[in-house]
Amino acid sequence: MSDAKNIQSVKGTRDFYPDDMRLRNWIADTWREVSLRNGFEEYDAPIFEYLDLFTIKSGDEIAAQLFSFTDRGGRSLAIRPEITPSLARMVNARINALPRPIKWFSVPRLCRAENPQRGRLREFFQWNVDVIGSDDVLADAECIYTAVDFLRQVGLTPDDVVVRIGSRPLVVHKLRQLGVAEAAMDQALVALDRRPKISAEAFAEQCAKAGLSDEQVGAICEFLDVPETDSLQQVAAVEGMDGDRNAILQLRTHLEAMGVWPYCRFDWHIVRGLAYYTGIVYEVFDAAGSLRAVAGGGRYDNLVEVLGGPKIGATGFGMGDVVLAILLKDKDKLPHTAGRLDYFVIDDRECPLSLVLQVVSEIRKRGGQADFSYKRQNTGKQLKEANRRGAAAAVIVRGAGKPIGIKNLANGNQTDQPLEDFLSLLDKTR
Amino acid sequence: MSDAKNIQSVKGTRDFYPDDMRLRNWIADTWREVSLRNGFEEYDAPIFEYLDLFTIKSGDEIAAQLFSFTDRGGRSLAIRPEITPSLARMVNARINALPRPIKWFSVPRLCRAENPQRGRLREFFQWNVDVIGSDDVLADAECIYTAVDFLRQVGLTPDDVVVRIGSRPLVVHKLRQLGVAEAAMDQALVALDRRPKISAEAFAEQCAKAGLSDEQVGAICEFLDVPETDSLQQVAAVEGMDGDRNAILQLRTHLEAMGVWPYCRFDWHIVRGLAYYTGIVYEVFDAAGSLRAVAGGGRYDNLVEVLGGPKIGATGFGMGDVVLAILLKDKDKLPHTAGRLDYFVIDDRECPLSLVLQVVSEIRKRGGQADFSYKRQNTGKQLKEANRRGAAAAVIVRGAGKPIGIKNLANGNQTDQPLEDFLSLLDKTR
Repeated sequence: MSDAKNIQSVKGTRDFYPDDMRLRNWIADTWREVSLRNGFEEYDAPIFEYLDLFTIKSGDEIAAQLFSFTDRGGRSLAIRPEITPSLARMVNARINALPRPIKWFSVPRLCRAENPQRGRLREFFQWNVDVIGSDDVLADAECIYTAVDFLRQVGLTPDDVVVRIGSRPLVVHKLRQLGVAEAAMDQALVALDRRPKISAEAFAEQCAKAGLSDEQVGAICEFLDVPETDSLQQVAAVEGMDGDRNAILQLRTHLEAMGVWPYCRFDWHIVRGLAYYTGIVYEVFDAAGSLRAVAGGGRYDNLVEVLGGPKIGATGFGMGDVVLAILLKDKDKLPHTAGRLDYFVIDDRECPLSLVLQVVSEIRKRGGQADFSYKRQNTGKQLKEANRRGAAAAVIVRGAGKPIGIKNLANGNQTDQPLEDFLSLLDKTR
Repeated sequence: MSDAKNIQSVKGTRDFYPDDMRLRNWIADTWREVSLRNGFEEYDAPIFEYLDLFTIKSGDEIAAQLFSFTDRGGRSLAIRPEITPSLARMVNARINALPRPIKWFSVPRLCRAENPQRGRLREFFQWNVDVIGSDDVLADAECIYTAVDFLRQVGLTPDDVVVRIGSRPLVVHKLRQLGVAEAAMDQALVALDRRPKISAEAFAEQCAKAGLSDEQVGAICEFLDVPETDSLQQVAAVEGMDGDRNAILQLRTHLEAMGVWPYCRFDWHIVRGLAYYTGIVYEVFDAAGSLRAVAGGGRYDNLVEVLGGPKIGATGFGMGDVVLAILLKDKDKLPHTAGRLDYFVIDDRECPLSLVLQVVSEIRKRGGQADFSYKRQNTGKQLKEANRRGAAAAVIVRGAGKPIGIKNLANGNQTDQPLEDFLSLLDKTR
């Protein structure tokens, strides 16, 4: 038993005390509000699934991060490290009944067996926004718009954040043109993905490992290092690959019409780590580039099919709460959240407790947030508790049939009135 | 790969499609609203903890239902089957900084390795309401009041639900007086708990297993089977045990003052299964008694101490979403939830897509819920989609500089106005 006495929380998880919880709710509620106004409907899936669901198509990075276990029947299960496979499973299960495009969002709790570090925890929340059943680049545009709509709503400007947009097929095509062999392609993409975070030497080393010559590395760097304003001209100049090229150009046109292109850039480096992306991909970063990605997503046209459904277009992104909260704190955009009450009910010396309880419950019944002190103590102490609890007003109860006092705790003004008048006012303003 | 194609969800878990999710959100949002107006603050803990946290004090019933696993460091972890141990851990970690009483609530996702059946799943949500740091029966009264406040808000009356209140120490005292030996006490309590759900023969059998004589069983039954209106007189007549006896009598007085005693009854059968309860206990049932308990709770004055903290009073309850939803459905109290939008933006034949996108994004930017069709199709089809999506109005866009039409989809009325006027109206009503 003595060992048991100092059980801590597990490293990489968080306790949400009321102040932390209000902040978490503010983020999640804002995600919900923005999703709903952009025409997305909320869904959720179980926190655990059959292990196979996560290992089929997610790639080794995710598979290595699974918390897996077996149930009493010996079945292999895992806590979800992402929700997209569950989403594809759910869509497949009702593929013929669901009108398309399917515009859904979720705010799942996810767990990954990582080494905890700044911006990366073993348990976190992730906003997921997806459009399934449309090949139209409008679907990609809407997802990106929705991400920016949120960033804008919480007060982040193009000076704070940037959406870096890439294209998996176009970059593969480009690398082929520069002489990268098929066998080296995956490693070359990984090197590309890491390039902004590593030194030129480390990049050259990774490329060498992929079997690229110094000449090829030079050509790739020259190609990548054009000014960002020119990168879309590079896209426009791509020969062949009409569909993928036009998708990027149309994406820009749509995002311009929707007024959020100032947040966006084309960037050849963006390829995304996960195995299942097939087209346009993007990541949201802080403009200073000092944090991990705030969000990432793209088109994954094969996943639904791999899970037994038809081949239908799908695109979406995930935004985690951990890096986002760090960024918002850095930018001083987190709201001030504190506990609050409408009323704190205080008893005068002669007042019976039953009357306090009656007044408290009558206020609550009418939707008012009300509380009181469990201790029978003097008015001054009770007023102090009222202030500590963030009450807007104190209701002072003096005895049956006597008028109550309503004290505005912001300015100290107090008015007296019959209890019945106060309650019928609450009824009216409800 | 072909095996992978038909991965299902795990039995005993639920997929929340948008209709299901709206219902789940309605329940959780109502739990939150009622908690806040009763002066409780929201907290949450990680979904997994060290296994030890759950096995110390929860009793074998919970321990057998754990989904446990090990992380890469070989540490034993488990998905939470309840949140109370995490709550006690969190309170202990800040025991000197938290003003008391600590009035907290949570709506955790919980998992138990049970055999799924009606009203019992392997993953569910549970409303938890607790007061820590008060020995006063006021704390128990507030928890019960809060439970009833919710039941009342969702439209359940004393004809639909009943809060059955018991007292662990009083029933143990009573059983002792009736000659039950200490060694047989736990088994006798289990038999008592099960009595309302089993036959007289099965009850007698369980009592025999506990070593009780037929005579003792007869005395217990005679005692238990007084009319419910007399059970509080039995409590008042208990000799010794003044604290526990008065707690029940005061509880009734407080709940009467708060206007919710009509929902409540004293019932000697209520002892609760979990090991950590120490005083007043209660369970909420449907009045017909055909379902499992909707909620259950009570006082657990030792748990904080067992987890390394001081000996301080604690009391609270949990209400699961599964039985609750069954009951609300039976009583026809579930709300009608459907997807909805404020506006669905429709384009006339000559209107460029960019203008549609612009209007949609301008509405969204102002907080309006707006969507549009990805397909360029005729107005009739777009109107049909607007109706299917539950839009309150269709906004018909005809071309740059032309007035837009606002069609009320409830009554079919349509008015035309310049886009600017419409948007500035949105600005004003925001």
